[in-house]
Amino acid sequence: MATSNSNPPLKDDLDIVIPTIRSLDFLEMWRPFFEPYHLIIVQDGDPSRAIKVPNGFDYELFNRNDINKILGPKASCISFKDSACRCFGYMVSKKKYIFTIDDDCFVAKDPSGKDIDALSQHIRNLLHPSTPYFFNTLYDPFSEGADFVRGYPFSLREGVPTAVSHGLWLNIPDYDAPTQLVKPRERNNRYVDAVMTIPKGTLFPMCGMNLAFDRQLIGPAMYFGLMGDGQPIGRYDDMWAGWCVKVICDHLGLGIKTGLPYIWHSKASNPFVNLKKEYKGIFWQEEIIPFFQATSLPKECTTVQQCYVELSKHVKDKLGKIDPYFVKLADAMVTWIEAWDELNPLDSKKGNGK
Amino acid sequence: MATSNSNPPLKDDLDIVIPTIRSLDFLEMWRPFFEPYHLIIVQDGDPSRAIKVPNGFDYELFNRNDINKILGPKASCISFKDSACRCFGYMVSKKKYIFTIDDDCFVAKDPSGKDIDALSQHIRNLLHPSTPYFFNTLYDPFSEGADFVRGYPFSLREGVPTAVSHGLWLNIPDYDAPTQLVKPRERNNRYVDAVMTIPKGTLFPMCGMNLAFDRQLIGPAMYFGLMGDGQPIGRYDDMWAGWCVKVICDHLGLGIKTGLPYIWHSKASNPFVNLKKEYKGIFWQEEIIPFFQATSLPKECTTVQQCYVELSKHVKDKLGKIDPYFVKLADAMVTWIEAWDELNPLDSKKGNGK
Repeated sequence: MATSNSNPPLKDDLDIVIPTIRSLDFLEMWRPFFEPYHLIIVQDGDPSRAIKVPNGFDYELFNRNDINKILGPKASCISFKDSACRCFGYMVSKKKYIFTIDDDCFVAKDPSGKDIDALSQHIRNLLHPSTPYFFNTLYDPFSEGADFVRGYPFSLREGVPTAVSHGLWLNIPDYDAPTQLVKPRERNNRYVDAVMTIPKGTLFPMCGMNLAFDRQLIGPAMYFGLMGDGQPIGRYDDMWAGWCVKVICDHLGLGIKTGLPYIWHSKASNPFVNLKKEYKGIFWQEEIIPFFQATSLPKECTTVQQCYVELSKHVKDKLGKIDPYFVKLADAMVTWIEAWDELNPLDSKKGNGK
Repeated sequence: MATSNSNPPLKDDLDIVIPTIRSLDFLEMWRPFFEPYHLIIVQDGDPSRAIKVPNGFDYELFNRNDINKILGPKASCISFKDSACRCFGYMVSKKKYIFTIDDDCFVAKDPSGKDIDALSQHIRNLLHPSTPYFFNTLYDPFSEGADFVRGYPFSLREGVPTAVSHGLWLNIPDYDAPTQLVKPRERNNRYVDAVMTIPKGTLFPMCGMNLAFDRQLIGPAMYFGLMGDGQPIGRYDDMWAGWCVKVICDHLGLGIKTGLPYIWHSKASNPFVNLKKEYKGIFWQEEIIPFFQATSLPKECTTVQQCYVELSKHVKDKLGKIDPYFVKLADAMVTWIEAWDELNPLDSKKGNGK
């Protein structure tokens, strides 16, 4: 592999954020990997329902009442009755790294039959540079046995800091409702042994099922929007975050990787329910994608917070015409940043750690 | 897989172009796969040396004398004593598809131990659309068991025609001389089971070892430049072609895929010899890459030939300042197009088949 300086993070550097836990099996299966870390559980539904956490885990649980208490009126920016509420966990964490995972995602096996330590691969991805300015045909030049190929400019080999590591899913693929309906039996059995940087200027569909990021580098942009209770749309929380994050990473010179690690996604959500949540998004994304492709941020925006507030203005101006929802969302984006800065006063002072 | 209309090409639709054949083993090993096709061998060195082709193959052999005879003074655009001469084969072919391979590349095995039919995977890549406008995290949506993931805009799922299929190499990776010198023992053992589209606006290092393309769509841009005898640079023939091809594909709305199939690259070339050939390229590419990244073609250029001639003007203007070599190269680019049109008079009349 190409050389890069990196030290493994201590367990005190990462929090695991989980939107809900519906079964004890989930944490039992992950116990060998998750037990050393602190868990932040953001309960996505009725606060009166109890969430059981097996013994031995170090965790905090936040329900809607806690969110309201901590954020006051600013709690309006956090979704209710939707897994999008998980982003509250990013805000209250004090760690450098976040790993977030859904409770229907289990430990996958690699082709040799060995359990995949997803967390350790994410950390590896985050600790090694990204290469967004030129495509390397042998994929991640920082992985074992790989490097930059002939024709890769030497000046670009140092790479840029990696802000996001997007992991994939074996078994149930992350399909939209129409594709689920058309292909109810499709399973992902293809183990692609690769990690790659998403090139600068290219958008991608970021899935929140198996995702890690450096919250010091990009945290304030990891807002999962307004979904669920009282909102006209669902299942676009992670997508929205991904598009915002990508535009801001491109602007600030940060990298996003996708590929390894895999988790085992155990069950498909109901495609009929999903269709109801998604159908406006299916129309809207046809305008949202060109919007993000065309958005460029002024060079005066040098922190994630500045970029994000600027982006919220573009959202209001350009997407507000599609539906009043986007005006509300743009306002929530600003509220989110205000709440972030309130809970993380040092972040904004030191220019977000950059 | 996502649906796409495609019919497998007849064997009369593809030529295999090989720059030299130094051993009978090469064709014997490929016999089950190559025998149905027509081979075009473009001898890259001394025309008096005989090239042996085993019985049973349908082939044409062109040496320097043949090239001089066919092209007359325009033969100046074809490199001598360098495998870059292979592009003459692209020009004299009358087929829709070209597969080009080096004679030190053998049949690789997939992880199950089965021989990989590289040609058939290339054809599959070329017959299915590319998706350069948005990244699909499950890689090629047109491969078995895969599709577009949630959040992929439906309007972009039709894709665009695929012009180039770039295959990879197991065993000896395609490294530059400095990396070869630093890591003489590195071997590529990672079989990455994926094909992907290189996103629009992203350049990549195109290697000519294991490459297929649709010559009706992109042929006139597949010029391997001036290398070898009398030239100040070598080992940038395929890179040069790749950068030109990518800019033109982006302009014309065509796609380029990379990944599968693998071949087995049997031996590393001499790193000391390579360093001598490459060292100017290593400097120059630091200016060439930003040049290609910044180049945009006017919308009046609607054929590959028009794009390529326009690009040659940019090369002369912008890269001519680096070294007089680029002025000569720009002139050779124009000569190449003139020679192409002379040998393929119907192509230019029908707007290159588009």
